[in-house]
Amino acid sequence: MRYIFYLLPRCSLLGTCLARLRGFQKLSSVDEALQKFFSATEFPEPKTVSAPLREAVNRVLAETIVAEDDLPQVDRSAVDGYAVKAQDVSDASQFKRVTLGLTQRAVLADRCARRLWTGNPLPKGADAVAMLENTKQVNNSIQVLTALTPGENVSKKGEDIMKGEVAVKPGIRLKPQHLGLLAALGVGRVKIFEKPRIGIFSTGNEITEVGRRRLKNQIFDSNRLIISTLCEEVGATPIDLGIARDNFEMITEKFRASLAADATISTGGTSVGGPDLVPEVVNSLGAPGIIVHGVAMRPGMPTALAVVDNKPIMMFPGNPVAAMIAFDVFSRPLIQRLSGLRRIETRPTLEARMTRRIATSLGRRTFVRVRVIQRSGGPIAEPVSARGSSLISTMTKSNGYTVVPEDREGLEKGETVVVHMFEAVEEK
Amino acid sequence: MRYIFYLLPRCSLLGTCLARLRGFQKLSSVDEALQKFFSATEFPEPKTVSAPLREAVNRVLAETIVAEDDLPQVDRSAVDGYAVKAQDVSDASQFKRVTLGLTQRAVLADRCARRLWTGNPLPKGADAVAMLENTKQVNNSIQVLTALTPGENVSKKGEDIMKGEVAVKPGIRLKPQHLGLLAALGVGRVKIFEKPRIGIFSTGNEITEVGRRRLKNQIFDSNRLIISTLCEEVGATPIDLGIARDNFEMITEKFRASLAADATISTGGTSVGGPDLVPEVVNSLGAPGIIVHGVAMRPGMPTALAVVDNKPIMMFPGNPVAAMIAFDVFSRPLIQRLSGLRRIETRPTLEARMTRRIATSLGRRTFVRVRVIQRSGGPIAEPVSARGSSLISTMTKSNGYTVVPEDREGLEKGETVVVHMFEAVEEK
Repeated sequence: MRYIFYLLPRCSLLGTCLARLRGFQKLSSVDEALQKFFSATEFPEPKTVSAPLREAVNRVLAETIVAEDDLPQVDRSAVDGYAVKAQDVSDASQFKRVTLGLTQRAVLADRCARRLWTGNPLPKGADAVAMLENTKQVNNSIQVLTALTPGENVSKKGEDIMKGEVAVKPGIRLKPQHLGLLAALGVGRVKIFEKPRIGIFSTGNEITEVGRRRLKNQIFDSNRLIISTLCEEVGATPIDLGIARDNFEMITEKFRASLAADATISTGGTSVGGPDLVPEVVNSLGAPGIIVHGVAMRPGMPTALAVVDNKPIMMFPGNPVAAMIAFDVFSRPLIQRLSGLRRIETRPTLEARMTRRIATSLGRRTFVRVRVIQRSGGPIAEPVSARGSSLISTMTKSNGYTVVPEDREGLEKGETVVVHMFEAVEEK
Repeated sequence: MRYIFYLLPRCSLLGTCLARLRGFQKLSSVDEALQKFFSATEFPEPKTVSAPLREAVNRVLAETIVAEDDLPQVDRSAVDGYAVKAQDVSDASQFKRVTLGLTQRAVLADRCARRLWTGNPLPKGADAVAMLENTKQVNNSIQVLTALTPGENVSKKGEDIMKGEVAVKPGIRLKPQHLGLLAALGVGRVKIFEKPRIGIFSTGNEITEVGRRRLKNQIFDSNRLIISTLCEEVGATPIDLGIARDNFEMITEKFRASLAADATISTGGTSVGGPDLVPEVVNSLGAPGIIVHGVAMRPGMPTALAVVDNKPIMMFPGNPVAAMIAFDVFSRPLIQRLSGLRRIETRPTLEARMTRRIATSLGRRTFVRVRVIQRSGGPIAEPVSARGSSLISTMTKSNGYTVVPEDREGLEKGETVVVHMFEAVEEK
């Protein structure tokens, strides 16, 4: 794909882009785009690294952890009470109390009981524990007031996990509960996958760094910060490559620098024609190059997707809202697959009722930002600025988005929709 | 609350705790416990610190951010196309094309149009933008094929946010979208609340560090790791204070060290009587001391809550499952309030249908772990080991829990329940 430039004598600079004044020739549907992009991308097994358990939180496990011991290691009491032989109290009741002698012996004799606290190992011979509240102590013996069956109130050896059993599988993100199980098994270090590294830059002559003095008509760069923090949220390491002017060489340089990373996300410069050079640069870098350019989604239509040197490249529009939505659609599942995760983690969803009708365009998948509010009759979803799709404040005023499929022209008032939440629900 | 110790001649060591062999006298309901604990706790305004925007992600904003400029600063084009005067094309259509002369002038004359790319400022005099696909270029002029109204396809000055308007309020957790808005406004640094510091230790003679060689009957400590990583998840800084033996002085020392933190969480040693000294130690430290001891919940019944020197103390049972659930019930909201958050962030919830009946005890709030699986007919919730409440593997086999209220004796098969999710839903 090469542009042909005309120079028209009287039309000044405008003429330079005449040949491209036709917009996108054909848009891919979101599903087509995902399918094409993912099947062109290789997902090599990520590199692994060994880490102490404490540092492995939220990381993806890269090995199968097998229990090297039974958990619990021995039969333990699950309550405060008395170790007994169940057969001695099999018919005990309020009205037929069974009296057992108290002992401290390591082996429990018939018709004896031994005081235990929660977690204490059972003495040999004992097979049940009478709960404190179901007993009464009388001098040096106890009365048991309820019948017990073998195993009652006992955490049996290996009941939690048995020696040789798989405790945690590879591809799992290690949450506190997984770490807890691994710690209980005495596992001190685990093999985890390295986080994917994502090269990130913004393009545009009008873009300047936050913190600098802004010239007239300049726009502060918000996309790099948004995309970087979203990458972290999804479990990747962002590599900040700065801002590129709308200049073939500068954009080329950024992409080349980013090919050392596992994937690249650029924002801006993805329209067809005019100063937008990003897809053109990517096609000059290597095969297969651009795979998708123009997606039937709103916002996010000028998204382009490519693969160069087996590295996936995602080119999102400069509009921050479009960039955020496109990140959710394309980067989130891609990064998770690059992370070695066994299954994709979507945002939490919630069902809510639309408070009013909204209109969308047929043939486009539309991401409508909504504010979900918890009401006594169930959650409601209030559309936030259906029109101004480029307004970044719509993302802070909303707490989620709902997806209107391509074959619909909007959502009805009162309709129940699935909302993908990016902030907590408001209770009101 | 002081214990009276008896020494009975023939009953060996057991006699030492005879006076306490009665279990919990009265349990507080979960709601009572929360209410008593929170109303005894002072929530001072957290200290603040200034941070660059990049480091403020997921932190709680401590100031009101007001827009110092309009966003956008000027009227900008929302599309690729031509800036026009709407009045010139108010009746344009496919069948009545309106021809406008192309210009590059800074001020748009009547019946003229100027080429613009998305984000470009509008020339003076222009008040709408004709989308590229609704125009046709003919030599040095364009034909407009659709009617436009003033403001159409224009991002109006101040439309996103107006100068003087509040952009982000204090008490909000800064997510990527908030950072994006602040960056777009040129805000480079923000005042955030310091994270609350939570002192954490485990108690128990049988507990040993993961990584050490374990003696017979010892248990590896999993609670500190679970509680520490949960604290981080909720936005607090855990202070690891190690393990205390079941010894009055050692436990006292840990609590004293922890009073420098904003709150304390201990695990183990909370039962009534026997070797469980934790609540006794806390009462010796200062007023008001123990506020709640024994909560009508399952798991988590032996939970104790206290305030000493205006610092909240949460004493959870040694069973890791009970500790995790008690953390969710008591520590999660407490830490969030200590963080300066304007509203409590609960775990994401989901409605799912129970795959089978389960029985619970009347008068106890029961936290039933379930595995939610996405099915074509909607999500289903499969109870995970209703019986073995102390099994830590139930937390890794489940991905959420549902709460059975005190006035019910279980859940019916097919009943729709709200599940609090701690891991992603499984798609199957």
